Amino acid sequence: MMLVDILMEQIAACKAPVVVGLDPVIDSIPDAYFADYDDALEGVAAAIYDFNRDVIDAIEGLVPAVKPQIAFYEMFGSAGVASFEKTARYAKAKGFVVVEDGKRNDIGNTARAYAQGHLGKVRLNRKEVDSPYNVDFLTVSPFLGEESLEPFIQVCREHDKGIFILVRTSNPGNRMVQDAKSSEGKTVSEALASYIDTQARLYTGVSGYSSIGAVVGATYPREAAALRQAMQTSVFLVPGYGAQGGGAQDVVPCFNGDGLGAIVNSSRGILYSYLSTHGKGCSKAQYRQSVTQATQAMQREIYAALRAHYPKMVY
Amino acid sequence: MMLVDILMEQIAACKAPVVVGLDPVIDSIPDAYFADYDDALEGVAAAIYDFNRDVIDAIEGLVPAVKPQIAFYEMFGSAGVASFEKTARYAKAKGFVVVEDGKRNDIGNTARAYAQGHLGKVRLNRKEVDSPYNVDFLTVSPFLGEESLEPFIQVCREHDKGIFILVRTSNPGNRMVQDAKSSEGKTVSEALASYIDTQARLYTGVSGYSSIGAVVGATYPREAAALRQAMQTSVFLVPGYGAQGGGAQDVVPCFNGDGLGAIVNSSRGILYSYLSTHGKGCSKAQYRQSVTQATQAMQREIYAALRAHYPKMVY
Repeated sequence: MMLVDILMEQIAACKAPVVVGLDPVIDSIPDAYFADYDDALEGVAAAIYDFNRDVIDAIEGLVPAVKPQIAFYEMFGSAGVASFEKTARYAKAKGFVVVEDGKRNDIGNTARAYAQGHLGKVRLNRKEVDSPYNVDFLTVSPFLGEESLEPFIQVCREHDKGIFILVRTSNPGNRMVQDAKSSEGKTVSEALASYIDTQARLYTGVSGYSSIGAVVGATYPREAAALRQAMQTSVFLVPGYGAQGGGAQDVVPCFNGDGLGAIVNSSRGILYSYLSTHGKGCSKAQYRQSVTQATQAMQREIYAALRAHYPKMVY
Repeated sequence: MMLVDILMEQIAACKAPVVVGLDPVIDSIPDAYFADYDDALEGVAAAIYDFNRDVIDAIEGLVPAVKPQIAFYEMFGSAGVASFEKTARYAKAKGFVVVEDGKRNDIGNTARAYAQGHLGKVRLNRKEVDSPYNVDFLTVSPFLGEESLEPFIQVCREHDKGIFILVRTSNPGNRMVQDAKSSEGKTVSEALASYIDTQARLYTGVSGYSSIGAVVGATYPREAAALRQAMQTSVFLVPGYGAQGGGAQDVVPCFNGDGLGAIVNSSRGILYSYLSTHGKGCSKAQYRQSVTQATQAMQREIYAALRAHYPKMVY
């Protein structure tokens, strides 16, 4: 079984095509997590790791995947990156598929350095070691074109890893770039979809899906339906649910009739819903319970919308 | 004086609109730099820092700026990022302007986390500290559109820092995205240029230039001339010189008549030209000398091309 098959199995087992975003926003984390540490880069990075472990423990068995956004770690420098590495390792040990949201992109040996560094093997002076992050999926930006994506796809194939290439992001301002058209009349999103579909079909698992995936926002259901048709084997990573305005009905077109093929992210809606009920002074136990409940609510909402729409879904 | 003015002054003082790319490619670094360290992530990261210090020492006074490509550091995890931080600090202490090539991009508070994390102030639990990288410029990808650029521009204005937004990259495959056209008939590159020009004119220094800049590849001189007209106050970061095929004549259209407004990058051409003369077994002293000579050769070549083309240049 390949990574993508394991992901599809875990989605079905949890009845949850849901990924929880691990975005440690300092202002929004309960005070309790900072109590044991110095208010310095290292202390805050350590607090973030404790916070993440509690989130991961609170959602264990409920969802198949987590998505740490590396911006919220690398801002604390090497200490924050160490915290990211430990978070990824902890989540993987608990059986989660780990999606790094990094939106990396470059060309040539730089693109390969990103791909190997985050997903594959790292060349030292005389030997190779596993990537220090060793995540399962990485999000990739396609601004530099097809040749900037190839090194990432190559590393996915070498190491059974995956990528989600940005195709249609959830923000309204995406149109400046993503709606621009080629001389053949295809939008950038459509041209990317066609490229990704070709690559994905060359690399599918027994589930029929491919880990050469796409980011397709929950906020544009009409475009999502067309993109689903254009990339039937790719897994979609779907941002924009909840805080950004996408509802359960809006994500339905991101799925195939089997109820698979997409994974919907929520970060703030799960991590910080406690603020409106408990406030920053809440205990760690209260916090974990709030995360569990918010995750269960999201699972129910999405699962009900999919059941209503796809009578032949497989879970 | 603002950052951009200091950069223009240092370009004129060195007679070198040149930035040296600090891309530590393990396969290509002299063996001598690895001799003192374990062949592990930490050891290699330490070796990279020693290597960078020697490069920086070898080009001191010759060029105004260095450009570490973070992909080649973060691939070694937190140890590599620590090495990046130390490299940036060392280069700044020696008076170089430091351009981080990260091609970061995201929206909302994630974009702000990148911008503050790399260029500005980082919020801890109860206080703010300087960014652990604290670079002067960061390269930014615009795939998510204008609203993804605003948080970066905001942080530049708050902390007198700069960005280079990808407009026309040096690789042939750029056309898939960058040549696509809006309904008004503007290419993505042209639309970005228009946006950047507006932002740059709102934020210029006494030199008349702005640190809201653009990446414009050396490999497309015709497009570069049009983009120079479209963004007269922005500084261009020009990749693609040397190893990627751009010559001194090709970079001329990236400049204004004053001989300013652009900074041409070379990485491999300076760092690894020693391979064809000395080979991997060369001494550190020989290596430093090779870096000095390759930098001087590039300076002479570009300076001569500019003098020939721009009789009124100011240095």
